[in-house]
Amino acid sequence: MLKLYYAPGTCALASHITLEEVGAPYSAERLNFRNNQQNSADYLRINPKGRVPTLVTDNGVLTETPAILAFLAQSFPQAKLAPLDDPMAFAQVQSVNSYLCSTVHVAHAHKMRGSRWASEEGSLADMKRKVPETMMACFALIERDILKGPWVMGEQYTICDPYLYTIAGWLESDGVDMTKLPKIVAHRKRMEERPAVATVLAEEKAAA
Amino acid sequence: MLKLYYAPGTCALASHITLEEVGAPYSAERLNFRNNQQNSADYLRINPKGRVPTLVTDNGVLTETPAILAFLAQSFPQAKLAPLDDPMAFAQVQSVNSYLCSTVHVAHAHKMRGSRWASEEGSLADMKRKVPETMMACFALIERDILKGPWVMGEQYTICDPYLYTIAGWLESDGVDMTKLPKIVAHRKRMEERPAVATVLAEEKAAA
Repeated sequence: MLKLYYAPGTCALASHITLEEVGAPYSAERLNFRNNQQNSADYLRINPKGRVPTLVTDNGVLTETPAILAFLAQSFPQAKLAPLDDPMAFAQVQSVNSYLCSTVHVAHAHKMRGSRWASEEGSLADMKRKVPETMMACFALIERDILKGPWVMGEQYTICDPYLYTIAGWLESDGVDMTKLPKIVAHRKRMEERPAVATVLAEEKAAA
Repeated sequence: MLKLYYAPGTCALASHITLEEVGAPYSAERLNFRNNQQNSADYLRINPKGRVPTLVTDNGVLTETPAILAFLAQSFPQAKLAPLDDPMAFAQVQSVNSYLCSTVHVAHAHKMRGSRWASEEGSLADMKRKVPETMMACFALIERDILKGPWVMGEQYTICDPYLYTIAGWLESDGVDMTKLPKIVAHRKRMEERPAVATVLAEEKAAA
């Protein structure tokens, strides 16, 4: 059985939603970031990177959201969450998720996790101040060039949608003016109408 | 025919090597980063992100290294560059490449591209000072937990190998003590014995 380690408010939401979407039997264990549980000896044995999400399977442990999402799409092909047999179409899905991971989430991470890359208080404050601008730039590009609508890849819902939804959920607290991102707002609303999304949001809230 | 836009010394090397490895007919166009050519109007029409690599195909334009590498592995299955039919094994390959993209390359980028995330000179200098530490931490994890040997995934050469090689090539100038990373050093040497790697290194040097 699949087991997901997550924490609320993190990018692990994308994997959590996708597990629910594919209908896989799974359990979800919540880590307490306030207690730095992701860096406990027990957890580091499971994932030495000390991060979420981690997906534990009978056949190995997976880390990194883009890989977990692709794994679920490929393992549950009946859920049709990625165009697995079309190399270019599948690569476009992977490209979107790679951009979300390595550019967009990274931009956001400079708000609260700037100490990964800098030491001085002045640097951390400087990085924090720039987050509204960098997140706006990313989402302006997504709004204009990536999000086809109604779903990211157009008519077909894919593993890009839970991931975009997850990161877009951070935008207001990142100080971005949502009136400039109507397609993103519509996408979020559409996501929240999905039973799988509603189920997971309720579960992550209840486990608090 | 496939066309790769690259610049020397960048992560585009991974895609360039992989194109050569799969034996695809391709052309490679070099951008001049000193002239900021990646932000020219012409190039932004091709890739609005203003980055390399970009892979232009008859069937669409691809960005983001992990997606390009997976596309090449899937499009040229006879080259056996990824375990396409085994979802967990393929996901592990994608996980490594996602880590290289969103954690390791990002750590390195704080040396010369810190202005993406901060504005003040003091912040940029602070970030630069931390790069030897962050790159050493990443590669200590790779050396201990990821690089199975002789190739990243063990006996089988995959799309992880050109990507690891590319980023490992930055380590000395990032101020990392290579005597602590013997497996990485051995991997680099083994890569340089491959005809495809030698060909691409020579081509990128000659085009200067």
